[in-house]
Amino acid sequence: MKRTHTCGELTLDNKGEKVILQGWVKKNRKLGALTFIDLRDRYGTTQLLIDESSQKKFPEIKSEFVIEITGEVLERKSKNPDLKTGEIEVKVINLIIINEAKLTPFEIKDGLEANEDTKMTFRYLDLRREEMQKNLLIRSQVNKIIRDYYHRLNFIEVETPIFGKSTPEGARDFLVPSRVNVNKFYALPQSPQLYKQLLMIAGMDRYFQIAKCFRDEDLRIDRQPEFTQLDMEMSFATPEDIQNNIENLLAEIIFKVKNIKIKTPLPRITYQEAISKYGIDKPDLRFSLEINDVNDIFKSSEVNLFCNLKKNEKIRAIKVDSLLAKKDLEQLTEVAKQNSLVNLPFLKYSNNEWTGSLAKNLSDSEKQQLLKKFEIKGDCTILFAVGDFDISSRGLGAVRNEAAKILKLYKPEEINLLWVVDFPLFEFSEEENRYVAAHHPFTQPKEESLQDFDKNKSTALAAAYDIVMNGFEIGGGSQRITNENIQKRMFKAIEMSNQTVEDNFGWFINAYQYGAPYHSGCALGIDRIVMILTQASSIREVIAFPKNSNGIDPMTNAPDLVSTKQLDEINLKLK
Amino acid sequence: MKRTHTCGELTLDNKGEKVILQGWVKKNRKLGALTFIDLRDRYGTTQLLIDESSQKKFPEIKSEFVIEITGEVLERKSKNPDLKTGEIEVKVINLIIINEAKLTPFEIKDGLEANEDTKMTFRYLDLRREEMQKNLLIRSQVNKIIRDYYHRLNFIEVETPIFGKSTPEGARDFLVPSRVNVNKFYALPQSPQLYKQLLMIAGMDRYFQIAKCFRDEDLRIDRQPEFTQLDMEMSFATPEDIQNNIENLLAEIIFKVKNIKIKTPLPRITYQEAISKYGIDKPDLRFSLEINDVNDIFKSSEVNLFCNLKKNEKIRAIKVDSLLAKKDLEQLTEVAKQNSLVNLPFLKYSNNEWTGSLAKNLSDSEKQQLLKKFEIKGDCTILFAVGDFDISSRGLGAVRNEAAKILKLYKPEEINLLWVVDFPLFEFSEEENRYVAAHHPFTQPKEESLQDFDKNKSTALAAAYDIVMNGFEIGGGSQRITNENIQKRMFKAIEMSNQTVEDNFGWFINAYQYGAPYHSGCALGIDRIVMILTQASSIREVIAFPKNSNGIDPMTNAPDLVSTKQLDEINLKLK
Repeated sequence: MKRTHTCGELTLDNKGEKVILQGWVKKNRKLGALTFIDLRDRYGTTQLLIDESSQKKFPEIKSEFVIEITGEVLERKSKNPDLKTGEIEVKVINLIIINEAKLTPFEIKDGLEANEDTKMTFRYLDLRREEMQKNLLIRSQVNKIIRDYYHRLNFIEVETPIFGKSTPEGARDFLVPSRVNVNKFYALPQSPQLYKQLLMIAGMDRYFQIAKCFRDEDLRIDRQPEFTQLDMEMSFATPEDIQNNIENLLAEIIFKVKNIKIKTPLPRITYQEAISKYGIDKPDLRFSLEINDVNDIFKSSEVNLFCNLKKNEKIRAIKVDSLLAKKDLEQLTEVAKQNSLVNLPFLKYSNNEWTGSLAKNLSDSEKQQLLKKFEIKGDCTILFAVGDFDISSRGLGAVRNEAAKILKLYKPEEINLLWVVDFPLFEFSEEENRYVAAHHPFTQPKEESLQDFDKNKSTALAAAYDIVMNGFEIGGGSQRITNENIQKRMFKAIEMSNQTVEDNFGWFINAYQYGAPYHSGCALGIDRIVMILTQASSIREVIAFPKNSNGIDPMTNAPDLVSTKQLDEINLKLK
Repeated sequence: MKRTHTCGELTLDNKGEKVILQGWVKKNRKLGALTFIDLRDRYGTTQLLIDESSQKKFPEIKSEFVIEITGEVLERKSKNPDLKTGEIEVKVINLIIINEAKLTPFEIKDGLEANEDTKMTFRYLDLRREEMQKNLLIRSQVNKIIRDYYHRLNFIEVETPIFGKSTPEGARDFLVPSRVNVNKFYALPQSPQLYKQLLMIAGMDRYFQIAKCFRDEDLRIDRQPEFTQLDMEMSFATPEDIQNNIENLLAEIIFKVKNIKIKTPLPRITYQEAISKYGIDKPDLRFSLEINDVNDIFKSSEVNLFCNLKKNEKIRAIKVDSLLAKKDLEQLTEVAKQNSLVNLPFLKYSNNEWTGSLAKNLSDSEKQQLLKKFEIKGDCTILFAVGDFDISSRGLGAVRNEAAKILKLYKPEEINLLWVVDFPLFEFSEEENRYVAAHHPFTQPKEESLQDFDKNKSTALAAAYDIVMNGFEIGGGSQRITNENIQKRMFKAIEMSNQTVEDNFGWFINAYQYGAPYHSGCALGIDRIVMILTQASSIREVIAFPKNSNGIDPMTNAPDLVSTKQLDEINLKLK
């Protein structure tokens, strides 16, 4: 290479050396007779110095020009201790312009408030920002740590097909018309689930892959039509084996990237406990704020809201150690309403005084019991939800997250991990008026549900688990069915006809008949993990060329119209 | 994990230990009162021993059953030195069946001649073969070596989108209908070419990715609709920098996988030299067999074929150090005809005698000159082609490859690598009646062609290079255009209208205006490289779940029909 050093490399050790640097002009300023240039590349910034006599010899340069300079490394007078190259500057002997640059549509600097679509249209300029470069470097590092980890443990990385077969169940598939096989379509994988199970049946024993997956779901702010997941599977492994494997991996990633030591084994709580205590199956446990049942306290209450409860109605509450301001209470009420609660009644406690919307008819006994139940020692606010257990739990779960944010109950750089286990095997789909697989129909029922999972669907448990990081579900997995008979009962339980099973999964279920090891696995969402590690505000910030919330890349303008010739070739017509 | 060891692990060091093994029954045979079972997993095979008294206690087992045994490690009487576990056997104390197996549709063993479609339908069984497991393990290892190499050199691995934009030029795109953006289509990438160039403009400096690519080309025996390539790019790098980088990588792969040391720097020959000497731009140099011009020798010949040559016709020939048998000559003539030669005239030399179809009117002077030209020292055959330089060269190039195969001029495990450089910038497309980019339209013309590449298209050279391994083009790359003006001349030279350029590449060319570093890169075909390293007969043997030559996966039956509902959702109709 022509350059002798990068822009992040020179120190006093290089003093006196003649060097060649190449990079982008970050800053260019005159100070009396001297010109100072900050030259930037991925590795850092180096200060260049041009004296008055040389200035005339060199072409004029502007921000973002790409230049090459030859120069001598000098000790800098006013050193910059924050910069690796902060002790030196390079006196320019020769300077050539490699490529000029027009004025960029926005300044190349972090924290800039530019229009999101403009930034995406000129993504290659947005990617010049230090923060974006750091995000992509961490992403690259995370992938490396994952691969090193699995190779060290004798896993084999296998690439599974992008061109697969469309199957019912799960999200909507993206389709790819086949030109050669007229009127037929490939489907892009929502995950390599069936392939990795076949690899277990093939005896690959330990498989991993960092895989592209695709789901044609309705787009949300933080959803991309394509995403990346770590996909892994182990033969002769139980859910516990997988959980150990995954938590050790995550601890290694977090230590190497953030220098934070995570204590393993991670806490494991059941789905039921998560909903009950935190109102959500992906609780953020950087803070406590548990939800409590307080029916007992109010069983003969004269508080309006609590008299005349219906049989299944619950009174649930969380306590915040703060007298919430009106504005905060309004904000929390808003969140409560967005999450199916009618309102957010509350009590405030301060100096032995109870105030708030429910204080009026509160009995002394109720006051005493509240003090005891919530271990109240000073000012606090208790937020209530009344109604169906599930709805009031989920509503308070959302309120809990918002309250923690308002009260700054955690440090943004903190990392909290836990497993949620014992998920329901089924969930009832109102839309389809039947039970569907909560995870996917290849999930093994938990030991205790094996007998009757197809009879007692509402209570059947799955050998399935999710891993939760700072309130995000970053992954999950299960033990898989490897018994033809259990698989058939499962399909029957979700009311899939024999014909549909045969047409769609016959090829797969057949494989169980030729010697299948029991196996379990997991998948982790790389985009989300890197987003959390970099404290990025969106997964778009950790993807080099993302789509916007309409599934469009404003840079290339994909997706786009195609020619009639192209459609003819695949035998399709727009409707 | 429940197993204490894998099936490839136990040695005499474990003698006396109580172990738990899990795996597949590979063989199951009775020898007198004893039963011997070979238990197999990915790591190896362990011999199990069941004595007569235990036999009755255990369930009956058959080939490919998955079982778990508890047993004691004993020293084996008749040791097998070829096996890591060959010194021991495990006396079974307990045996349970994890899963039974039906009779497999073909035997699980290497070298079996089973119907290809049957093997693909039961791919998970074919993958149990030792050879297939080895192939996939080597593939995994190669990917690991590549990633370690690039991380060591400070490259960043960036994932580029699978959902891109369809552009003209190049092969046919696979399309993905967008449901949200009605009537619009994403295109799957034929390579991450433009994205990686944008990453250079974004200042990423050194990029690599092991990327999935897609081309909707007509299928051939050895072509897959999806394939995997190593894709890399370096800023401020010349073609020589890239060639050094790639050849060091390949040398590392070959050393680590095959324990063969490749001498670097690799030979570099020009495209022109390759065609002239070997009749092909991807010569197999495990053997010599150069093609020679012999016009001079026959300039006043009385041999029928050589009189009355047209002005541009060449007489070209290769010499084989063997008196080819009639059958071999017929086979070579067949190859010659398949490669546009009319026939394959020849001379044989033995004991000072010349025979063969051209011997009749051969003059003494011609004989003398042939002896000298071809440095003939013993029996040999000279094969001739007469006609247009290009056609006769390419025809003899194919004959050359076939002759080397017949005469076993190389060892199958040998590895030969070379660079072919100075490719033409354009090639004339008869179909489109215009010059098209030989590599792609972002390829920088070679320094000496910069001035007039758009005037002298037939002779313009590209800063492009291919890497050739054992006669396969395994990769290639180029320096890229980074100057807007050169890019515009290039598009004009291939007769792309300004409007088409603007519509399809405007977004990309714009990027050059904001400070572009010069950059070069390369892509390597992972499937082919692993195929050569494993001496597999086809890339299908190194892909876990390939498509057959009709683009179909007989296992899943992808591609397949989809429901009208699915088509409605993406607003499409079959024609």
